[in-house]
Amino acid sequence: MLKSTMNQNKVQTLKGFRDFLPEAMAVRNYVKNLLIDTFETFGFEPIETPTLEYSSVLMGKYGDEADKLVYSFTDNGDRQIGMRYDLTVPTAKVLAMYSQTIPMPFKRYQIQPVWRAENTQKGRYREVLQCDIDTFGTNSPIADAEILAVINTVLQKLNFKTFTILINSRIVLNNILKACKITEDKNSILQSLDKFSKIGQDGVTKELIGKNIPKAKITVLFKYIKQAQPDEYLQNVINQLKILGVSKNNYQFDPTIVRGLDYYTGPIFETVVTKPK
Amino acid sequence: MLKSTMNQNKVQTLKGFRDFLPEAMAVRNYVKNLLIDTFETFGFEPIETPTLEYSSVLMGKYGDEADKLVYSFTDNGDRQIGMRYDLTVPTAKVLAMYSQTIPMPFKRYQIQPVWRAENTQKGRYREVLQCDIDTFGTNSPIADAEILAVINTVLQKLNFKTFTILINSRIVLNNILKACKITEDKNSILQSLDKFSKIGQDGVTKELIGKNIPKAKITVLFKYIKQAQPDEYLQNVINQLKILGVSKNNYQFDPTIVRGLDYYTGPIFETVVTKPK
Repeated sequence: MLKSTMNQNKVQTLKGFRDFLPEAMAVRNYVKNLLIDTFETFGFEPIETPTLEYSSVLMGKYGDEADKLVYSFTDNGDRQIGMRYDLTVPTAKVLAMYSQTIPMPFKRYQIQPVWRAENTQKGRYREVLQCDIDTFGTNSPIADAEILAVINTVLQKLNFKTFTILINSRIVLNNILKACKITEDKNSILQSLDKFSKIGQDGVTKELIGKNIPKAKITVLFKYIKQAQPDEYLQNVINQLKILGVSKNNYQFDPTIVRGLDYYTGPIFETVVTKPK
Repeated sequence: MLKSTMNQNKVQTLKGFRDFLPEAMAVRNYVKNLLIDTFETFGFEPIETPTLEYSSVLMGKYGDEADKLVYSFTDNGDRQIGMRYDLTVPTAKVLAMYSQTIPMPFKRYQIQPVWRAENTQKGRYREVLQCDIDTFGTNSPIADAEILAVINTVLQKLNFKTFTILINSRIVLNNILKACKITEDKNSILQSLDKFSKIGQDGVTKELIGKNIPKAKITVLFKYIKQAQPDEYLQNVINQLKILGVSKNNYQFDPTIVRGLDYYTGPIFETVVTKPK
């Protein structure tokens, strides 16, 4: 009955969303279980947070551009609510709410879908399964190194032959901007710099000129970027990697890594798989 | 940084939604994995469907009352969309869309959250994890019996000491209403009857009188209900249970079972756990 009603209405799945049939699910579940196993081996514990949150919880944390991509609406009780945009902000909410009962340091993993009201384009979806691990309540570089060791372990278990974990720090970037005496909109400059791996130095330069940054300043910016070194904290993280058995072939300091969200303040990572392509 | 911003805003989780910390997650994951193991042992395969669907896919399948409880809104592209209210209608969509490629019979399980914009009350949440199994593309009573065998196995594995799977059929109910020559709104009468286990025969009688059903008809209705027997198909399902090794102590024909959604047309089940309470 249901099925025939459906047929008549020419049903379709929303653009940017996907149905997963058993064949696709087999792959997804294999990867998901491998992630869970690895996370738990490293001592991370699961949490889950609601799909819907008060808009006030979600908004103002991701930056203006990203805020626009939150699916938000008014519910039957006239509450302004939104769908989970990432897993970090809801976890920050949990930490704020249950700070008295959660033992620190708190190593949590979270595997849940997130939603982004983006224009769809190749390989970008509006609903994606996000997998987060974080350690809260410690300032130790060991905690950051451990995250990198997890990434390294997962990629090896998944049989990726060649990959590089690119490592940088927002502090390194802020110091560079300061050294260059850049007083213009720093976020906007970082957003352009973030495209370095896609459009290269020429592309970034062109974009910055478009943003009215004087050419001389841009030249200085790239000079500083090329000379950049990890700050003391990040160097400690990198030193720990050796102790954790992460091969030097699998990571690299890269001062052009920025990452989009406003809430990044310390170390930032991005992994590039080169084989298989 | 994030955490302190959160603290200042006096953050809270939406009413009817829950955060699950590691202790609660351990229980949830234990049960979830036990369900998955059992489903797969019985030959059911996983699928997943999107959180958001066109409203036209969701609406008009659950009945007027339930339709009002769908979280729905207009997205950035002016599409009328809604959040998954159950797992059956999205699966019917999948069957309609991929009918050429899905081999029949199709035994699928689906474990995903669903959302219902209900008024919150004790033990009712607006976001719940739903676990469905269904067999599509067969008329065999064995398929229905298998579902009951899965329920039986799961409850035993979860160490529930005493439980009863109550079995009925919408066909049995429709035949009773026909035999009673009831011409009034059948759905409304069934909705009242569905409360039998909560408010008893007196309570249901009172409600039906309130709905202007003549007292004589109500008396006849309960006479027929007390004499009701499984129809031929349902009797075949029950016969299969023995073959599948389900103990007679664990199920029972109950002609007062209705279940709320409009799309039920054949056998319906509901399980009551009596020990532990």
